[in-house]
Amino acid sequence: MFNTTTYNNRRAKLADNVQAKGLLLFLGNIENPVNFEDNTYHFRQDSSFLYYFGIQQPHLAAIIDLDENKTIVFGDEMSIDAIVWMGRQETLKEKCAKAGVEETRPFADLYTYLKKAQSAQRPVHYLPPYQSVNKILLSDLLEVPIKQLSPSVPMIQAIVAQREIKEAQEIVEIEKALTVTNEMHLLAMRMSKAGVKEYEIVSAIQNVAGSHNCELAYPSIVTINGGILHNHYKMNTLQSGQLLLNDSGCETAMGYASDLTRTFPVDKKFTAEQRDLYNVVLASFEGAKAELREGTKFKNVHLKAAEILSQGLIDLGFMKGNAQDAVAAHAHTMFFQCGLGHMMGLDVHDMEDLGEQYVGYTADEPKETSIFGLKSLRLGKALKAGHVLTVEPGIYFIPELIEMWEADKKNAEFINYEKVKAFQHFGGIRIEDNFLIQADGYQHLGPELIKTVAEIEDYKAKF
Amino acid sequence: MFNTTTYNNRRAKLADNVQAKGLLLFLGNIENPVNFEDNTYHFRQDSSFLYYFGIQQPHLAAIIDLDENKTIVFGDEMSIDAIVWMGRQETLKEKCAKAGVEETRPFADLYTYLKKAQSAQRPVHYLPPYQSVNKILLSDLLEVPIKQLSPSVPMIQAIVAQREIKEAQEIVEIEKALTVTNEMHLLAMRMSKAGVKEYEIVSAIQNVAGSHNCELAYPSIVTINGGILHNHYKMNTLQSGQLLLNDSGCETAMGYASDLTRTFPVDKKFTAEQRDLYNVVLASFEGAKAELREGTKFKNVHLKAAEILSQGLIDLGFMKGNAQDAVAAHAHTMFFQCGLGHMMGLDVHDMEDLGEQYVGYTADEPKETSIFGLKSLRLGKALKAGHVLTVEPGIYFIPELIEMWEADKKNAEFINYEKVKAFQHFGGIRIEDNFLIQADGYQHLGPELIKTVAEIEDYKAKF
Repeated sequence: MFNTTTYNNRRAKLADNVQAKGLLLFLGNIENPVNFEDNTYHFRQDSSFLYYFGIQQPHLAAIIDLDENKTIVFGDEMSIDAIVWMGRQETLKEKCAKAGVEETRPFADLYTYLKKAQSAQRPVHYLPPYQSVNKILLSDLLEVPIKQLSPSVPMIQAIVAQREIKEAQEIVEIEKALTVTNEMHLLAMRMSKAGVKEYEIVSAIQNVAGSHNCELAYPSIVTINGGILHNHYKMNTLQSGQLLLNDSGCETAMGYASDLTRTFPVDKKFTAEQRDLYNVVLASFEGAKAELREGTKFKNVHLKAAEILSQGLIDLGFMKGNAQDAVAAHAHTMFFQCGLGHMMGLDVHDMEDLGEQYVGYTADEPKETSIFGLKSLRLGKALKAGHVLTVEPGIYFIPELIEMWEADKKNAEFINYEKVKAFQHFGGIRIEDNFLIQADGYQHLGPELIKTVAEIEDYKAKF
Repeated sequence: MFNTTTYNNRRAKLADNVQAKGLLLFLGNIENPVNFEDNTYHFRQDSSFLYYFGIQQPHLAAIIDLDENKTIVFGDEMSIDAIVWMGRQETLKEKCAKAGVEETRPFADLYTYLKKAQSAQRPVHYLPPYQSVNKILLSDLLEVPIKQLSPSVPMIQAIVAQREIKEAQEIVEIEKALTVTNEMHLLAMRMSKAGVKEYEIVSAIQNVAGSHNCELAYPSIVTINGGILHNHYKMNTLQSGQLLLNDSGCETAMGYASDLTRTFPVDKKFTAEQRDLYNVVLASFEGAKAELREGTKFKNVHLKAAEILSQGLIDLGFMKGNAQDAVAAHAHTMFFQCGLGHMMGLDVHDMEDLGEQYVGYTADEPKETSIFGLKSLRLGKALKAGHVLTVEPGIYFIPELIEMWEADKKNAEFINYEKVKAFQHFGGIRIEDNFLIQADGYQHLGPELIKTVAEIEDYKAKF
């Protein structure tokens, strides 16, 4: 936990800024069952609950009562039976005191508190539930069918506005995660040799996180088929001549995430073709990075990255024509189908549970959901100092997409289909780092992790 | 997956044996969200779904239509969009064919199929849902409030009767898990030295599982406070003179579990006190093992283990009087508060989601829920050849329990409170192996893992 003042200040600021009256209701997470009730996945507290209360314990809820200017945490102290089985632990009251909350009540009192508020016509604001157990709970608490639950837009907007500007102590946590994540990535580079299984690398880098008391921030993508963007298959055996894409990050005990990607050869050296395409992605990465500063729209950084990528692909003969025109026609989305990056913080896709339209866009400039490529861009709005985000351009050869586009002769003026088809099984390359936006630029977060062809080949030569 | 005949035979047997008409509805599991919808925990298919269909894919359901003598799997094939992001994979139709299921339908058809059956007054049988998402789904499908869902007793009984008798190929899988688990335990013994953190060991042994493409079967208990029975705290630093209790198992890619516990010194040798108490647990373990055979009630094996434990504690001066009388008075539950073991298979507590009263007990002899100790015994009924179970006696010093009992002078004729109080911070010792019940005895499952004081000290001396 951060210190008590942190949580008091965060809640006070939220209460001041939220355009609402009534109650702000926060639901914590539970320990979710795997294959029966008592065999559970590792506990992960809800991120907004963590942000405002900091308490890592299942089965809690909290109310900030805006009308009565008080905060209550609802949860049950351990019974003597539970103490016998689980040992004496810090009480909920003690944990709440550390978060600056003086009033705790039994969980069951949440029902009566809400009933009373509702009968007094006081509005109850809550966030979109993502865990099914909280959908059921909200439905029970508010006597509303699950499908008619209606999360509070003012509450979402005030929380996004607050959580998206990171405090200095949050940056420290993110950089802790990045320090561990760098170790994870270096180990993956050392381990990658012909004959090794993808899952062996996944497991070993998870152990790096675990040995620092960190969890993975998301399921690692460690794959020789980097062209598959959401690839969690991990049964392949690495073979000489292949590239390995490793997209892995961890989260600290406090819940702060990192998200890094490197792509490198299974062998000690890139092939000439791999190196050329790698350098196109690297140029795009560096060009995008140079655009980062307060006031710039991230959509424009994305398009800049796409333009540099397109120019590189023109130079190599995969594309043709003018790079700007190609991007205007979205021809680059043959190779770069996804977005350039996303916010990061207590969630690897920060606040994705609260809704992309609030986190990544504005009401005036919503996401362009009908355009392939842009519809996958999670962040488009103007950057502010204090935003933390990923930059992760890539080139992906997707046989099914190539086939579809070619059948339609799509963007034929910009794409050299003959050459692209010859590379359809090439796979994919992504390079990803994390950045803090500043008034006049950016701060690269965490220790620098090797990423040029020369750096990677020099490192691999040692093992 | 096992071969097609396996799944055909299992379903045919279930259809023959279930005392019901109508439909048997099976719900598969989903990928559960961690902190937002698309950041998910590792996928674990429901065990009964695995047993009858073998398909490891989220968002499936299946119906065995007893009246029409057919089986249908409901699920959606990948869209071209999904193929672009996730790669071309084996189709659901292909997976179902391997499980002997010829008919697949879109998931949405499940609603209409059930509506039609219900309007024809055909009963719909289903198992108790443990994941909240399936509670919501069942409630939607059947138009019944969640609190009024009513799982089918005939379906549960028929499935328990079938799943509790393990096939030879299931034993092979369990022994695969045990081979990996032995490695996990040996590594923990080698790593345990003063200065090491509990979480470093947890992480390293998870890596052993992961490097064999196995998951942990349950969250590992690796603790210097073995007296706390459900102890997932892992932040302690190992210190010289302490015992470490490691209760860890893995599950194979097909979902079969193992569950082993060893307790050993942080140093290379046990202290005299640790050795004496360890040998009491070991004697109890060996004595219980010798009782295992078809026809014996596991409750009696439990009580035999308790008696040997009590005799050992009398010999050491922690208890007094006659061991049989002490067990009859439940005085041993001061030290052995829990049950001797449980069924194991596709779940580490096999079929716990279906209800302990069906898995561990019979209607004639239900669990004794009012007696401390016996109320925590998950398995009491007569053993059958083909049962797979754990045997896991232990001695646990729980300061809160000692305090409560002493205040009440509880079982003062059997307990030497002065000596017990002197040991109240001793912690706990548990020894656990897995067994297959046979007509005239048992088969110890998996490779033998060192467990005598001499074996453990010899092993630790090498590192």
